[in-house]
Amino acid sequence: MTSVITLLTDYGLEDGYVAACHGVIAGIAPQARVIDVCHLIPSGDVRRGAAVLAQTIPYLPAGVHIGAVDPGAGGARRAVAVEAGDRVFIGPDNGLLSWAVHASGGARAAYELSNEEHFLRPVSPTFHGRDVFAPVAARLCVSGGLRLADLGPEVPVDRLVILPEPTSLLREGSVEGEVVSVDRYGNTQLSIAAGDLQALGIQVGDTLGVWLGRRQMALPYRETYAAVPPGELVAFADSAGLIAIAVNSGDAAQRLGLPPGAHVRLSPTR
Amino acid sequence: MTSVITLLTDYGLEDGYVAACHGVIAGIAPQARVIDVCHLIPSGDVRRGAAVLAQTIPYLPAGVHIGAVDPGAGGARRAVAVEAGDRVFIGPDNGLLSWAVHASGGARAAYELSNEEHFLRPVSPTFHGRDVFAPVAARLCVSGGLRLADLGPEVPVDRLVILPEPTSLLREGSVEGEVVSVDRYGNTQLSIAAGDLQALGIQVGDTLGVWLGRRQMALPYRETYAAVPPGELVAFADSAGLIAIAVNSGDAAQRLGLPPGAHVRLSPTR
Amino acid sequence: MTSVITLLTDYGLEDGYVAACHGVIAGIAPQARVIDVCHLIPSGDVRRGAAVLAQTIPYLPAGVHIGAVDPGAGGARRAVAVEAGDRVFIGPDNGLLSWAVHASGGARAAYELSNEEHFLRPVSPTFHGRDVFAPVAARLCVSGGLRLADLGPEVPVDRLVILPEPTSLLREGSVEGEVVSVDRYGNTQLSIAAGDLQALGIQVGDTLGVWLGRRQMALPYRETYAAVPPGELVAFADSAGLIAIAVNSGDAAQRLGLPPGAHVRLSPTR
Repeated sequence: MTSVITLLTDYGLEDGYVAACHGVIAGIAPQARVIDVCHLIPSGDVRRGAAVLAQTIPYLPAGVHIGAVDPGAGGARRAVAVEAGDRVFIGPDNGLLSWAVHASGGARAAYELSNEEHFLRPVSPTFHGRDVFAPVAARLCVSGGLRLADLGPEVPVDRLVILPEPTSLLREGSVEGEVVSVDRYGNTQLSIAAGDLQALGIQVGDTLGVWLGRRQMALPYRETYAAVPPGELVAFADSAGLIAIAVNSGDAAQRLGLPPGAHVRLSPTR
Repeated sequence: MTSVITLLTDYGLEDGYVAACHGVIAGIAPQARVIDVCHLIPSGDVRRGAAVLAQTIPYLPAGVHIGAVDPGAGGARRAVAVEAGDRVFIGPDNGLLSWAVHASGGARAAYELSNEEHFLRPVSPTFHGRDVFAPVAARLCVSGGLRLADLGPEVPVDRLVILPEPTSLLREGSVEGEVVSVDRYGNTQLSIAAGDLQALGIQVGDTLGVWLGRRQMALPYRETYAAVPPGELVAFADSAGLIAIAVNSGDAAQRLGLPPGAHVRLSPTR
Repeated sequence: MTSVITLLTDYGLEDGYVAACHGVIAGIAPQARVIDVCHLIPSGDVRRGAAVLAQTIPYLPAGVHIGAVDPGAGGARRAVAVEAGDRVFIGPDNGLLSWAVHASGGARAAYELSNEEHFLRPVSPTFHGRDVFAPVAARLCVSGGLRLADLGPEVPVDRLVILPEPTSLLREGSVEGEVVSVDRYGNTQLSIAAGDLQALGIQVGDTLGVWLGRRQMALPYRETYAAVPPGELVAFADSAGLIAIAVNSGDAAQRLGLPPGAHVRLSPTR
């Protein structure tokens, strides 16, 4: 029995949708602690949701983790509960959960959420967060409550939808990747891990050769964006261990105009 | 004694206003669980606040429910506590609470918040949420604490301000209503219940005749927005049981340009 | 041992940054209650963060109060824990905490956060909120946990960075100050206390002479913005006890175009 439930959705904060989920959980499992991971995932942006969940999960206590970014709600996709490490992930089987499951040690077992007796009824086809995911998560947290196998038939873990991970390719002399994500500050996170630069012999303090799409530039590689003067571009290992390009006290995403998915190559300069 | 307090306000999230209310409650009733319903009600928009509260309340545990959308704060309107079902609503008597009270079974008793000894003093005329509603709600949640009758003189329930409900008129052959609300996704919620379409013999899968102001169109009536291809308009019964017009993966409110209050008529097509 | 932790940051709500802090705290001190003060402080705006924290702190229970608005993260500034009254403030020593410390009775003792064994490791140079402030705050809340002196060497309280307070100068016949802050409603808060107007013999109901930069106008001084008709300018003592200029049901900051720091002078009219 766990007592932490976390919520990641694209419901936004202008409506009562998030509160309805909190209310359903509080009604069923009053002792559970609910942590809001993020509710401002852009509407239907499964990749962004997957990235935020996977990068936050290492810092969340073990619990039941709901993800609800679900452009196909009410459509054919199934809803699942996935066991990984000491965590349970609940949400649509559309890849949203897959990176966090991977970051938690990989799927050990999965079940389709099909036993409707555990749902709020009638189930709104457009609000599974409130009517399916929240009540199931809460019932898993109640002492003597549900077990995963009560939820529905087992799903072979190799049948779960996996979102393709952002690519990163270490070649001789350079590493290629893509823009994963842009945060509130305009920091542009790449799919390239700090370790890849190390493997190329690049160290903090060096200058990086950077190809962004067709543009080429040289950027200082520093420990933090604060190591360069305000307004200047810099590369650094961000809080998720990935290389990010930032402007100290500025907005690199706006300056560079790079959307998620854009191709990037980094290399040492000589 | 209850131990859930919910908060709906137009305070926004850029300031410390919501936190001040949480802090006041935590200081008086540390055991109470606080659920934020919504704080992004547009400033002073009592109708929008009333709609969000009424549509969320069925999913919230019984408790003390604060509403603070209060363009007349410090003016002549009175503050009230209203008992309805097993819930207590606290806020300005400006209609904000009235739809949620109705959804909770109607007002059984009401009291004016006039005994200042229960308030934080001095009371800021512009921040009754912090100085009046929060401390009163918290004191109602303390074991052996306040009873409603301690708050002030009883108010006859038929003297409470009632916000006119969005109209919906079922005629022979069509149903008329209005735009109630627009959510984060741009889904345009109408005042027309799914049951009204049923009464007209319209079923999921049919095509709806729709008059939006002066425009006329035909829309598929489906179980969910996901039942039509991305980018296409669709009507469906939303998670509050009301008919909504949406664009799958798009923004219907923007596409249609319909403000809350706009007139709408739906009918079967033949 | 205290059990309230509050969080004020400029992390925004689009990412999982705030949740990571909540998660770290919940993992170390599951019994602690976490109150979010504000996460929408404009990126790196230390003065705005200081103002929101100082104006909210009187309404928060005693606890450990984290502030993370830290444009120099990873740079040379030190991180500190400051004891003031029955509160502990944790954050960068960049002035962010200074007004709240002052509002809590002044710093009694301060310690540099330098004992890395209390941190999450490795410490990301750009996310001290998650890796330094949150775990330290949580460990201070665990029964039999850390004491302040365990955190690192004592810092003389007169060596802490103090942010210059917004100026306010009471002369014969007028009071000068500046724009401190603008809230969600567009209310423009001045550094001039209600008591200063009283000292000038100005009372609620009077007309104020107002110089805003080079413009001069006369404004009604009322108990609340609601005392004037919608759309009209008004001055009133706001919920922090400071004079604010507002437009009833409108946006004074937009109307007047006054940025924080702009010079203001108020006087009686005769």
